Amino acid sequence: MKTKILLKESEMPTHWYNVAADLSNPPAPYLGPDGNPVPPEAMLAIFPEALVMQEVSTERWIEIPGEVREALSLWRPSPLFRAHRLEQALKTPAKIYYKNEAVSPAGSHKPNTAVAQAYYNKQAGIKRLVTETGAGQWGCSLALAGQMFGIDVRVFMVKISYQQKPYRRSMMQTWGAEVFASPTNMTETGRRILAEHPDSNGSLGIAISEAVEEAAGRADSNYALGSVLNHVCLHQTIIGQEAKKQLEMVGDYPDVVIACCGGGSNFAGLAFPFVADKAAGKNVQLIAAEPTSCPTLTKGVYTYDWGDAVGLTPLMKMYTLGHDFMPPGIHAGGLRYHGDSALVSQLHKEGVVDAVAVPQLETFEAGVLFARTEGIIPAPESTHAIAATIREAKRCTETGEPKTLLFNLSGHGHFDMASYDRYFAGELEDFEYPEEAIKESLAHLPKFG
Amino acid sequence: MKTKILLKESEMPTHWYNVAADLSNPPAPYLGPDGNPVPPEAMLAIFPEALVMQEVSTERWIEIPGEVREALSLWRPSPLFRAHRLEQALKTPAKIYYKNEAVSPAGSHKPNTAVAQAYYNKQAGIKRLVTETGAGQWGCSLALAGQMFGIDVRVFMVKISYQQKPYRRSMMQTWGAEVFASPTNMTETGRRILAEHPDSNGSLGIAISEAVEEAAGRADSNYALGSVLNHVCLHQTIIGQEAKKQLEMVGDYPDVVIACCGGGSNFAGLAFPFVADKAAGKNVQLIAAEPTSCPTLTKGVYTYDWGDAVGLTPLMKMYTLGHDFMPPGIHAGGLRYHGDSALVSQLHKEGVVDAVAVPQLETFEAGVLFARTEGIIPAPESTHAIAATIREAKRCTETGEPKTLLFNLSGHGHFDMASYDRYFAGELEDFEYPEEAIKESLAHLPKFG
Repeated sequence: MKTKILLKESEMPTHWYNVAADLSNPPAPYLGPDGNPVPPEAMLAIFPEALVMQEVSTERWIEIPGEVREALSLWRPSPLFRAHRLEQALKTPAKIYYKNEAVSPAGSHKPNTAVAQAYYNKQAGIKRLVTETGAGQWGCSLALAGQMFGIDVRVFMVKISYQQKPYRRSMMQTWGAEVFASPTNMTETGRRILAEHPDSNGSLGIAISEAVEEAAGRADSNYALGSVLNHVCLHQTIIGQEAKKQLEMVGDYPDVVIACCGGGSNFAGLAFPFVADKAAGKNVQLIAAEPTSCPTLTKGVYTYDWGDAVGLTPLMKMYTLGHDFMPPGIHAGGLRYHGDSALVSQLHKEGVVDAVAVPQLETFEAGVLFARTEGIIPAPESTHAIAATIREAKRCTETGEPKTLLFNLSGHGHFDMASYDRYFAGELEDFEYPEEAIKESLAHLPKFG
Repeated sequence: MKTKILLKESEMPTHWYNVAADLSNPPAPYLGPDGNPVPPEAMLAIFPEALVMQEVSTERWIEIPGEVREALSLWRPSPLFRAHRLEQALKTPAKIYYKNEAVSPAGSHKPNTAVAQAYYNKQAGIKRLVTETGAGQWGCSLALAGQMFGIDVRVFMVKISYQQKPYRRSMMQTWGAEVFASPTNMTETGRRILAEHPDSNGSLGIAISEAVEEAAGRADSNYALGSVLNHVCLHQTIIGQEAKKQLEMVGDYPDVVIACCGGGSNFAGLAFPFVADKAAGKNVQLIAAEPTSCPTLTKGVYTYDWGDAVGLTPLMKMYTLGHDFMPPGIHAGGLRYHGDSALVSQLHKEGVVDAVAVPQLETFEAGVLFARTEGIIPAPESTHAIAATIREAKRCTETGEPKTLLFNLSGHGHFDMASYDRYFAGELEDFEYPEEAIKESLAHLPKFG
């Protein structure tokens, strides 16, 4: 029984797959506050041209530069595992495979795009990348990538995380990044917030604003984002392409492809390469798993909204709970985003991508079962994919169908053990966001045109 | 330029290499307090027969059971890396390779022996393994292995670590192990200590005593040790065997082999497979790197001493600083052992193995340089091997010799970021153990015969 399915380094994909080429309808453009499309040039203030071109490209295949491939090869191709022990524990006739993206030095799929972004910015002569981070997964990935390409990295880290979760901060510093507790007095946004609320704990919205302000104001600096945008989703498609090849090696193809979904890049990475197959008539179901506490795809509306909390970004057509939606402090920090990738949203709207919402306790139960069978302790984000996979596997047990399930283990939980502690202590609870509150924040959607 | 050198799963070693077959002199037997050799049968109270036979075997090759190989294949064969970026940073003509043992789910080389020990105990009908752990690396590895083979694991964790380093405890619990802050009131030793010192922080010596007492007193329970013993070193030799094959694949062979050395199993794992070559005339230097704060091989004496702090174990002939030597609270917790593996000690005595001592600040400096060049944040233990390798590489820069260096990256530093924090804050210092204090503890060596 084959457990670990490996590709040779020479079998790593040479191109990223651009799902925009296989959409039934053209991608909805980003809009300015006046309701008119934002020209790509406007994005050049904070992104290098190569990434802006990728953002708006509809070419199906985009070549991965050799230097990016070389950087990725430090940990790629990542292994695909057949979860024999989990299958046995579930007594399911289903075959469960998972792609292990926890093997990167930063511990998640995020470096797949971080190295590409660092590379293109370096090529464009940029000296410094500025970004924000909540719990620190993305900040770590960009710090690592910046170090690999000799580009400075400055991270605005939400102050409450900076204080309460110091180890991801240490990790960023070990990789040479500058990390600041946001709000800072380095930006106008930060100074304004601090003047009003000297004890502000910060928020992701504030940190984004600080990072964008800093990047836009300096010619030698650009901004980098870890999810949501088209080029970020693009860079992650190496995951699904590898998984397809690995399944081919054992003569298999998935009936169901599952990944957790916050901003959408991890889901996009695994699932997008299957969209073309689906369009060509293949019977494969694509499921995005999200928390019931932040049910963007399952309870949001598909409309134009801002990508950030305070309206600095262009308007994107996406599933949203409203840009001022405040999800509770659940343990899967990476899934607390009010919106979703425009591409994932459009595919969901068009019926190509399904979505399920999973409550927090079910995700931890799934994570512990996974750790005890497969040996790897998953990140709280990834446990959403595991829980959704277990639901499918149990359905197979009931129906007797021997389906092939594939999910993405997007990261390990080494920096989330405090959350496991609280789960074991019975201190966690489920949280279903009240319909009333969602209606309330949806009432603040931007109005124009 | 090849960076990552991978073996196929089918190329994983089928046998462990037993260095006892290639010693110039027969291994020194374990002695009882009366000075007479301890018969192997005496060890059956706490170890299964298969492991006792391995402990005293002089057969050169011992077959790895299929189930152990299958368990190891979850993360093995581990990758060998050529450290191109580190070489460039050092401007050295040396070629630097490292074996990455951080890829196991527990994050270090320790599971290599944990799965073997869990397997043999399961085969022997044992229901529960009992062990001690300091910072938690070994406890995690045994918890993982116990889960894989369906055997319960009970860990006595030094109380101060239990309280101050909760995340390795959470990890053990996630893998289903029972973890107790030692001293407990579950054992006579624990109760006696608590009666005298109700606020005792515990120590590794006390935790060992509790674990051995518990294991010896229950027919369904055995004891498991994570380093020092011959069978533990044996199980680690899979590391060096793989590394040799991987170097062969790129037509290389090391001039110098380097690993950090606490109890000795990580050093043994990488270096022992080269001992036979050396005996056959190959010119390869084997270097054990230890902390200046616990300089067992470099400043200890080669004599019989107890393996634990309180005299419960047999006497082993080894380099020792004295069983009541109290090393300072350095950050490489895994290297704070007063003695050393009997096999490593004998090889050092016979001139086959060299040793160097490295001060703490030099190890962290090396660890940060490694993280910033190779991308992986190393465990504080592993940074001793990195620092010793950097010394060799710098020597090559001076002499112009293009030596081939191979070291063992025994584990990652994900649970040691607080130590990196203190390093960056300038709060760490070097500590060279005073000769006087070593003399003092050496005066307490056991006397007999």
